[in-house]
Amino acid sequence: MSLALFAPDYLIGTIGIAVFAITGVLAGAKKGMDLFGIIVIGLVTAFGGGTLRDVIIDAPVFWIQNFNYVWIATTAAIIAFFMEDYFWKTYKPLLHLDAVGVALFNVQAIDKTLLLGYTPAVAVIMGLITGITGGIMRDILADRPNLILKNDLYATPILIGGILYVIMIQLFPNATTINTITAIAVVVIIRVAAIRWNLTFPKWLLFAGKESEN
Amino acid sequence: MSLALFAPDYLIGTIGIAVFAITGVLAGAKKGMDLFGIIVIGLVTAFGGGTLRDVIIDAPVFWIQNFNYVWIATTAAIIAFFMEDYFWKTYKPLLHLDAVGVALFNVQAIDKTLLLGYTPAVAVIMGLITGITGGIMRDILADRPNLILKNDLYATPILIGGILYVIMIQLFPNATTINTITAIAVVVIIRVAAIRWNLTFPKWLLFAGKESEN
Amino acid sequence: MSLALFAPDYLIGTIGIAVFAITGVLAGAKKGMDLFGIIVIGLVTAFGGGTLRDVIIDAPVFWIQNFNYVWIATTAAIIAFFMEDYFWKTYKPLLHLDAVGVALFNVQAIDKTLLLGYTPAVAVIMGLITGITGGIMRDILADRPNLILKNDLYATPILIGGILYVIMIQLFPNATTINTITAIAVVVIIRVAAIRWNLTFPKWLLFAGKESEN
Repeated sequence: MSLALFAPDYLIGTIGIAVFAITGVLAGAKKGMDLFGIIVIGLVTAFGGGTLRDVIIDAPVFWIQNFNYVWIATTAAIIAFFMEDYFWKTYKPLLHLDAVGVALFNVQAIDKTLLLGYTPAVAVIMGLITGITGGIMRDILADRPNLILKNDLYATPILIGGILYVIMIQLFPNATTINTITAIAVVVIIRVAAIRWNLTFPKWLLFAGKESEN
Repeated sequence: MSLALFAPDYLIGTIGIAVFAITGVLAGAKKGMDLFGIIVIGLVTAFGGGTLRDVIIDAPVFWIQNFNYVWIATTAAIIAFFMEDYFWKTYKPLLHLDAVGVALFNVQAIDKTLLLGYTPAVAVIMGLITGITGGIMRDILADRPNLILKNDLYATPILIGGILYVIMIQLFPNATTINTITAIAVVVIIRVAAIRWNLTFPKWLLFAGKESEN
Repeated sequence: MSLALFAPDYLIGTIGIAVFAITGVLAGAKKGMDLFGIIVIGLVTAFGGGTLRDVIIDAPVFWIQNFNYVWIATTAAIIAFFMEDYFWKTYKPLLHLDAVGVALFNVQAIDKTLLLGYTPAVAVIMGLITGITGGIMRDILADRPNLILKNDLYATPILIGGILYVIMIQLFPNATTINTITAIAVVVIIRVAAIRWNLTFPKWLLFAGKESEN
């Protein structure tokens, strides 16, 4: 049942999980960490967000239902450990694949949440939690500055894509394929543009923080 | 049902959530964070504790049931972003409102936990988790020293109020209103006194830490 | 029911929880933390892992079902606070007791997970999560380098013991006692050896991190 739900997206989902684990290792690992730590870094990046989502919406945790994901992410993290040099050379293309993964998981999370009877607004938040929590957990574990502390445009494309997706579902309930492809495309395009041109929020949307050190 | 439960406290609850989001932004935000990060800081402060509580006691997560809270906290965080100067000027009164919010949510958390059939001791812990977890999560996200690392008297008033409240429920099961008001008043009074006179634990209750750096 | 499940291990479980709280305080507490912070540090170390496990496998959280654990861990943390000197002198023996506790909780976590109908692979992961999460949460709260950042051989013995245990259950389904004792002994032996000889992963299993600061 639950497996069938994800069947059409399964291949992209699998690639997405592997890419998350690899980019997670590249972005999070520190010199001298042992292989066990590297695997944890990869798994937390790949599964942190979906796990928090499933716990909040009270659904069975997705990687328990589909344990293949764990093998794939573990393998990917081990490969990233041994082939670090190679993956750094392909980091930009990997970030693009990461954008595709995030875009897809956003749509999957929204579908899953709506199917459980939650409102569109809750579903959009669950897409966002799925997309950003793993990376934040990784950065906290690895003692690196996380998403909230950086100005990378990572979360905003997910949010825009999610809002667009639930609106399209309301307007065109039968155009499932078009809705899905549009929502994925919008996230990928904004995210890739952000990577390519180092887009950030404009200055007036950055916190002035005049007295925030009190 | 679950909504009705909170109905009498709804107005104060709404103000409490807004105040948590605002004090959360003031205490947690750092210069240069973008608006998205500021909103996350506000939401995590306002919802972190109640979310962890609901996940542990296996209740539906409160802000999903009452999504208005999310709009309110988001709006409050955005206002705090743009009116930082104004809110710093009113920070002391805001901290007092924060104390009222914490006191109220403590009582609500205890009521909710007891209603689900848990023991008074579990309920007191759930009040505490509700009151302190959001701020701790915010400080970890924002890379600031959290509650555990500071000597602020923030958690202790909640604990004292919670213990008093469950004892009063045992002794005077019919005096609902008096019990509630007393429990809220006790937390507010101790917390406000702590803010006003910078109260901390006495020195003999601070960790000596002779070898803790080993 | 659920209590009976743990009855034979109850005494060791109780000692394990107390030891976790004490070693948690010794390893995590910092000079100047107040008694409340120390108790939180002890409780988080003792209960963090089991709580995350129970939330993920959707079981009632163990310390709510068995609240005595909370009293024991709280008492142990308070004793550690006041008798820090004494416990530092016995830190090595305490670490050995900690190894016994981790080994036992690993087996308990695997049993509990299997009993709920999950696969052996999921059960092994739950043993690992139970064993390492509390210490990681403590270190994040206390702003100290966590397990992932250090090369201590802490998680690997748990993983080896867990894999061995589920294999033995498959091969010798009736040899419950022997399986349990073997799984506990393997974890304790490897962990004690790691403590005694400062064992770590070999150098080729440490992350080279050539460009990881990008």
